[in-house]
Amino acid sequence: MRSVLIGKTHMRGDASGLSRLGIDPASTIGVRIAECGFDPYERDDGIHPYSGHDPDPNYNRYLRDHGFGGDNPWEAWANTVVDETGGLHSGWYLKYSHLPARVPAEHSETAYTTNRAMDFMREAGDQPWLAHLSFIKPHWPYVVPAPYAGLYAPDDALPVVRSDAELAGPHPVYGAMTRHRVSRTFAKPGIRDAVMVGYMGLVKQIDDELGRLFAFMEAQGLMENTMIVFCADHGDFLGDHWLGDKELFHQPVVRTPLIVYDPDARADATRGTRCAALVEAVDLAPTFLDVYGGNPVPHVMDGRSLRPWLFGETPAEWRRVAVSECDYAFQDARIELQQPPIRSWMRMAFDGRWKYVLCEGFRPMLFDLEHDPHELQDLGASADPAHAAQRARLHEALFEWARRPRQRVTVSDEAIESIEVQARIAEGGILIGYADEDDLIAQRRLFKPRVR
Amino acid sequence: MRSVLIGKTHMRGDASGLSRLGIDPASTIGVRIAECGFDPYERDDGIHPYSGHDPDPNYNRYLRDHGFGGDNPWEAWANTVVDETGGLHSGWYLKYSHLPARVPAEHSETAYTTNRAMDFMREAGDQPWLAHLSFIKPHWPYVVPAPYAGLYAPDDALPVVRSDAELAGPHPVYGAMTRHRVSRTFAKPGIRDAVMVGYMGLVKQIDDELGRLFAFMEAQGLMENTMIVFCADHGDFLGDHWLGDKELFHQPVVRTPLIVYDPDARADATRGTRCAALVEAVDLAPTFLDVYGGNPVPHVMDGRSLRPWLFGETPAEWRRVAVSECDYAFQDARIELQQPPIRSWMRMAFDGRWKYVLCEGFRPMLFDLEHDPHELQDLGASADPAHAAQRARLHEALFEWARRPRQRVTVSDEAIESIEVQARIAEGGILIGYADEDDLIAQRRLFKPRVR
Repeated sequence: MRSVLIGKTHMRGDASGLSRLGIDPASTIGVRIAECGFDPYERDDGIHPYSGHDPDPNYNRYLRDHGFGGDNPWEAWANTVVDETGGLHSGWYLKYSHLPARVPAEHSETAYTTNRAMDFMREAGDQPWLAHLSFIKPHWPYVVPAPYAGLYAPDDALPVVRSDAELAGPHPVYGAMTRHRVSRTFAKPGIRDAVMVGYMGLVKQIDDELGRLFAFMEAQGLMENTMIVFCADHGDFLGDHWLGDKELFHQPVVRTPLIVYDPDARADATRGTRCAALVEAVDLAPTFLDVYGGNPVPHVMDGRSLRPWLFGETPAEWRRVAVSECDYAFQDARIELQQPPIRSWMRMAFDGRWKYVLCEGFRPMLFDLEHDPHELQDLGASADPAHAAQRARLHEALFEWARRPRQRVTVSDEAIESIEVQARIAEGGILIGYADEDDLIAQRRLFKPRVR
Repeated sequence: MRSVLIGKTHMRGDASGLSRLGIDPASTIGVRIAECGFDPYERDDGIHPYSGHDPDPNYNRYLRDHGFGGDNPWEAWANTVVDETGGLHSGWYLKYSHLPARVPAEHSETAYTTNRAMDFMREAGDQPWLAHLSFIKPHWPYVVPAPYAGLYAPDDALPVVRSDAELAGPHPVYGAMTRHRVSRTFAKPGIRDAVMVGYMGLVKQIDDELGRLFAFMEAQGLMENTMIVFCADHGDFLGDHWLGDKELFHQPVVRTPLIVYDPDARADATRGTRCAALVEAVDLAPTFLDVYGGNPVPHVMDGRSLRPWLFGETPAEWRRVAVSECDYAFQDARIELQQPPIRSWMRMAFDGRWKYVLCEGFRPMLFDLEHDPHELQDLGASADPAHAAQRARLHEALFEWARRPRQRVTVSDEAIESIEVQARIAEGGILIGYADEDDLIAQRRLFKPRVR
């Protein structure tokens, strides 16, 4: 079926890999490889203003067509804010995040992307499709147009989660990350307040825009036959734990939203409820495969269909830990810590209470979310034997995760299990391990072909 | 450079993967993918007589051209043996392994493959090349023509290595493997003796054929500029440990031969000596890359160049354990043990003395080769705390091995380390994490571009 990308991705093709395999990057397959497997109905790489990514994306052309001109209308309109005196400022600077973007809300990125999704659904008609609708915002630059820019005050935000104790003898990687520029900026007076005002406005805007999209889908009769999954690829520290951006594994970053609407009547069992199961983003592809009636491919895909949970069932076996990985090779922390890129990895195992972080080259981290729900106390070096036992248990859980078989991705378990015993005896005249002729005759008597 | 396969491989292309990527299996790239990256100068898939692999390989045509006719001359001549009375028997049956094959030695597979290697070297001329010369034998069917079939008596063989104690309360996977047909056959009276006679003949024959090849290379002036690596992909139990074939990790199987001839003068330092370093087959590709002047690609290749060892140097860091993996999904042991294919994995970590085997779903194995060089005593369940400590240490070594970063195969460490700090500050106008204009100016003062 048609699978399209509408919106943001940073994915790029591996040019040398494509060349080695003789795949034309401009071919359908070449483009799909470069776009995470999707056909790009609308691609917008976050609009890096002058960096050579998407030098003139559709959204810039759209802005010009609607009278918002210039070399880079995104920078000049969507990412420029207006202060009380009419002065213009770059939305990149975090202290201006509370000010309204110059672009009107109906021409903002979020509205534009929603419009493009509706264009796609209209064009697709009755053909089945899968759409990866990827909104850029909420994201930096954390600016939103009026009226969203004025909707919230700093006091409406959740209080920042951080403590001085976190900075006393911190884990080396955590400590280095608190010294990242973005972290230091969020620690400056007034910055988090300004950003939260913009951020909450962006959240409200996406809520409204999705309402507009769902009303459209309702009118088109699409709500009866379309599964909708609302999720995010990561959270944002926004100053929590003296950090900015998205590295490390505290709840603000790894506990991403996941709301699933399944029109199937069997999902009525759980409609409107919450589920506490440990699920991962890798469960989405197997879920879609399940919805479309495909066979699961556990030798290829790590995740599992979420449909049992949606139908109110509890799978007999489910993962006991959720795993997340972080490659900080491209971060300043790696340089400060003088880690070679190949060793700048961290892996998290979280069982719903205990969160263990294995850091190559450094001691682990450990948090007990039952007694420390805000993750302010790192027990990674605690001498308490109970903590040592939790660290050892989750360390082993990560090893179990790491050695899940992935080498055999071309032959399914099903295919292996369907091999007839008879075929094993003397496949095509290959008589391995028989002493003599009588031996083969005896074996042939012993094994009857199995019908499966 | 030209890289060719001459001889045996079981490698086959992943048809569905090729189709998904739009790669024509008949194209140069499609063929190379199907042949482990080599151009097949001569491919011979072990000649599965009636199984549809290589339905009529070159070697069959060669035999017919030399007067050895029939539908499948390989089966009728190379794999048929002649007894004392002139009676013919299938060489598949192990009890006939001591009898001479019907084909003359000079037209046997080993001689044929050697001839094809010489053909290739003649044709290649002065162009540089890499040849994967892959002899089928020694291998089942364990039969060899005269005079090799008569060269050795059973008493010339090393004594079989096995003890009754091994079968008392064995590890479940080991126990199931001793019940494989080939294992039971090797335990029958006379079978090992018959096979060893054939096997030693095959070893002597490949020794002679390589002598013929090296004399040819000497005459062609190739010994001065050609690295030669003699190795095997696995050993053979041949009845040791009550086993046949090649599963599991006892020394007869994992301690494969590795002889390296490097014409470089720097290798004079070690010429004719032995090296006890823990090396793996995965070290060969990086060695060849090194020989040809390529940069190492540790983010892509797991192994490391062996050249320091060849030049008499001791690398500052080298692996402390050798790792081997075994997927027994296709073995009867899996069925007997009722293991799902995805869990039928074993991994070995060997540090030169202690050999630890991690078996999914079962207890581990452990052997102490210092006190038990023949690996007759499995300490995997030993209550001795010293053994528990060794198991824990090697278990952790396997985890370290399992989490070596392989996810980032498209960007080298070198590329990451060459990114300028200045570029990180404000790449293409992306100003992440700045509070305001002054912040950017201050940062620009702080960081001077580094010249690397």
